[in-house]
Amino acid sequence: MSRLDLWRQRTEWPLIGVAVIFLVAYGLPIAVPGLPRWADVLCGTLMTAVWFVFAADYLVRLLLADDTWQFVRRYWLDLVVVVLPLLRPLRLLLLVKVLQRFSRTGVQRLRGRVVTYATGGTALLILTSALAITDTERGAPGATIESLSDGFWWAITTMTTVGYGDQFPVTTAGRFIAAGLMVGGIALLGVVTATLASWMVQTVEEAAEDEATATRAQVNDLAAEVRALRAELARARDTEPAEAGGAR
Amino acid sequence: MSRLDLWRQRTEWPLIGVAVIFLVAYGLPIAVPGLPRWADVLCGTLMTAVWFVFAADYLVRLLLADDTWQFVRRYWLDLVVVVLPLLRPLRLLLLVKVLQRFSRTGVQRLRGRVVTYATGGTALLILTSALAITDTERGAPGATIESLSDGFWWAITTMTTVGYGDQFPVTTAGRFIAAGLMVGGIALLGVVTATLASWMVQTVEEAAEDEATATRAQVNDLAAEVRALRAELARARDTEPAEAGGAR
Amino acid sequence: MSRLDLWRQRTEWPLIGVAVIFLVAYGLPIAVPGLPRWADVLCGTLMTAVWFVFAADYLVRLLLADDTWQFVRRYWLDLVVVVLPLLRPLRLLLLVKVLQRFSRTGVQRLRGRVVTYATGGTALLILTSALAITDTERGAPGATIESLSDGFWWAITTMTTVGYGDQFPVTTAGRFIAAGLMVGGIALLGVVTATLASWMVQTVEEAAEDEATATRAQVNDLAAEVRALRAELARARDTEPAEAGGAR
Amino acid sequence: MSRLDLWRQRTEWPLIGVAVIFLVAYGLPIAVPGLPRWADVLCGTLMTAVWFVFAADYLVRLLLADDTWQFVRRYWLDLVVVVLPLLRPLRLLLLVKVLQRFSRTGVQRLRGRVVTYATGGTALLILTSALAITDTERGAPGATIESLSDGFWWAITTMTTVGYGDQFPVTTAGRFIAAGLMVGGIALLGVVTATLASWMVQTVEEAAEDEATATRAQVNDLAAEVRALRAELARARDTEPAEAGGAR
Repeated sequence: MSRLDLWRQRTEWPLIGVAVIFLVAYGLPIAVPGLPRWADVLCGTLMTAVWFVFAADYLVRLLLADDTWQFVRRYWLDLVVVVLPLLRPLRLLLLVKVLQRFSRTGVQRLRGRVVTYATGGTALLILTSALAITDTERGAPGATIESLSDGFWWAITTMTTVGYGDQFPVTTAGRFIAAGLMVGGIALLGVVTATLASWMVQTVEEAAEDEATATRAQVNDLAAEVRALRAELARARDTEPAEAGGAR
Repeated sequence: MSRLDLWRQRTEWPLIGVAVIFLVAYGLPIAVPGLPRWADVLCGTLMTAVWFVFAADYLVRLLLADDTWQFVRRYWLDLVVVVLPLLRPLRLLLLVKVLQRFSRTGVQRLRGRVVTYATGGTALLILTSALAITDTERGAPGATIESLSDGFWWAITTMTTVGYGDQFPVTTAGRFIAAGLMVGGIALLGVVTATLASWMVQTVEEAAEDEATATRAQVNDLAAEVRALRAELARARDTEPAEAGGAR
Repeated sequence: MSRLDLWRQRTEWPLIGVAVIFLVAYGLPIAVPGLPRWADVLCGTLMTAVWFVFAADYLVRLLLADDTWQFVRRYWLDLVVVVLPLLRPLRLLLLVKVLQRFSRTGVQRLRGRVVTYATGGTALLILTSALAITDTERGAPGATIESLSDGFWWAITTMTTVGYGDQFPVTTAGRFIAAGLMVGGIALLGVVTATLASWMVQTVEEAAEDEATATRAQVNDLAAEVRALRAELARARDTEPAEAGGAR
Repeated sequence: MSRLDLWRQRTEWPLIGVAVIFLVAYGLPIAVPGLPRWADVLCGTLMTAVWFVFAADYLVRLLLADDTWQFVRRYWLDLVVVVLPLLRPLRLLLLVKVLQRFSRTGVQRLRGRVVTYATGGTALLILTSALAITDTERGAPGATIESLSDGFWWAITTMTTVGYGDQFPVTTAGRFIAAGLMVGGIALLGVVTATLASWMVQTVEEAAEDEATATRAQVNDLAAEVRALRAELARARDTEPAEAGGAR
């Protein structure tokens, strides 16, 4: 195992902890608008600290990589979400990093349980979208999304493509968040909905199958008897061995 | 058959009757707002009675279960919908119980007729959603859903994800009902729509197949003749039996 | 061929002509609101005449049927759309008859060209829905669909489930038309969209396949040579004939 | 290679350049409303020049074609988009030509990379739709789409069928553009969304497969041993060769 892999393995859980801290520090001032000043400052400091941790993690991985240039090209998104938040209003981009962190670990842990993964991903995407859209839209002139509960409602109606139109982003940043949620979220929720639908179909069909099994067992018994008869015939007619193969 | 299974079998039809009673007692005051006082009281009493029946059924099943703790974990939803309605505004949750009751029996009865099941489920889900949303929204400030017919219209436009936006829930409880309808209903109606679509494709293709059958029959006749020839050849060349198998 | 089948075959084209006449007589006063009185009366008379033709066709088929009762049960929709328009406001239902007429003939003619059938069906459904909704909504208090072009726009945004909400039915009859369009239309347009999508995928993949064919041909040549070698070996080793079959 | 094919091959890249010029000349006055007069005139002249190039290309291909009449019928859309823009307001139709140009070259280049093709196609369709709708709607009475950024937002919410209803076309030309975007765009984005969804499922399943591979390898080893044993048995029992084939 290379030193890069070892680093990744060792930092997996600590980085998830850091991601959770970011989510809380980012979400708290959005969910509770009237926080005392010291709490606001604390959350801001925590977010900056998280950025330093992510930046340090990127640098270490860059140094440990065999081929620096290839690493930069392959993980260009990591570079973008680490460099751009230096412009304060773009600290939102760290949410992408958080989503990435959870999804990578999730894939490694869940191993094949597509439904659990898609459901968890949908919930996380709704949470981050609701936080991001509320943060971006609140206070904008003509905004319809004014609280976190509005944000959740908007995220759900958008993901399901219902789109009532009672709430929609009016700022450019909000529209970019919405576009991302639409493309990613519709695909993700599509997996959940399709799984639900196929599970319904399966449940009904299984009930029918139980009934069909009895009949099928009888047919199989008959087929086995026929096969046995044929095999005996083949043994008896040793001079015509190709018959048995051709008749199948 | 265990005593639990026996209980389930015996109570199946009575519990469906109870579910129908709940639907009527719940729906009547919503559909007809100006009911006389005694009718309102009667409906309320009936709903409480239904709750007692469901609670009693849960308790009996709990006592009959082999492993009490496993039963509680497996049927945790049953516990939730039985305990929470004690808080009056949450009596809505009994609708979940009613939906469950119908769907379980439905699966056992319909055995494989996916379309009938999905159509019935869609109709029942539209009915319960329309009732629940009208009950929750009517009278709320800024509400757009004011009568049962509004509720039905809202449920249909939401399930199909059309979402005109002329009517949408404004209360938090209404938004939770909507979120449930979106995820569950879209999956369910997806089954109906997909079945309809595949039925259309099939109808058109069947017409084409009728024409193709004649041709295929001729091809099959030819193939059978070829096979017969090959078998005769194999019999004639008893010394090369592997040939017949390899040429297939 | 029974007399009923003969009747069906003979009346197929005349009845399509009658359906076209109904569409024109129904649609003209909707498309051009300020028609002179005599034209309005003419269209009304034509529609009544079409009803008589459909009613006569139903009666003749009923008399020619072997089992009257079975015929009534199987074609109950025919009976409904023939009897109900006697109540004037329900003459809309004759549109169902017209749609049915076209779709039955379409299936027989197109034989397997699913795309053409779905596209034609979608166009016809949009036309009839636009006519019906404009007829029903125009003049209603608070109506947003006021002209035939509004009706077309509404039908398209509804079928694709976009549902902007700039136009939606407000009358109960309009909402029933909308519900029908949603379920039927979404399925139908789903066929068109899915076909378009799979055609796109196919076009791109075909280009890739042209390139792959050359390689595959070489692989096939090699495989054929290997097979020939094996067959020769099998012939040489007449004493081990099972080998050739088992190695495949 | 015929002279027509040679012409096509030679003009492929120049015509793409011309298409890009058209896009810029068409889009610039829409994106930057307050352009100086000379720039407006320059863009208009460039668009006319592009029309002449497309018209010339059509004529040359018509002359080089073996069967003139067949060429006209097969490429009727080319004729329409070349002839109709003579009516000035219909110069929009040249966008169809541009889309066609990119998609044809794209299919030839990308060969099988469906995702890249669908993503590129979606981006180009959003760009052209946003340009066209802004050009058509801006300044119309009651219009909600007033700038290019509004146009992009409208195109995305329409393609994903979310349809908030905060922005929608009000002119007839705009509604035709919308109808085209809905049918074509939904199919195209459907490919992107479905690919994304299946990629998610695949990623999760691959993680599970890595684990399963070890087990499967063991099973395969066992199966190989069993086969070897059977082959030896068959060789030993030279008198019952059909047995080995029948037992498979």
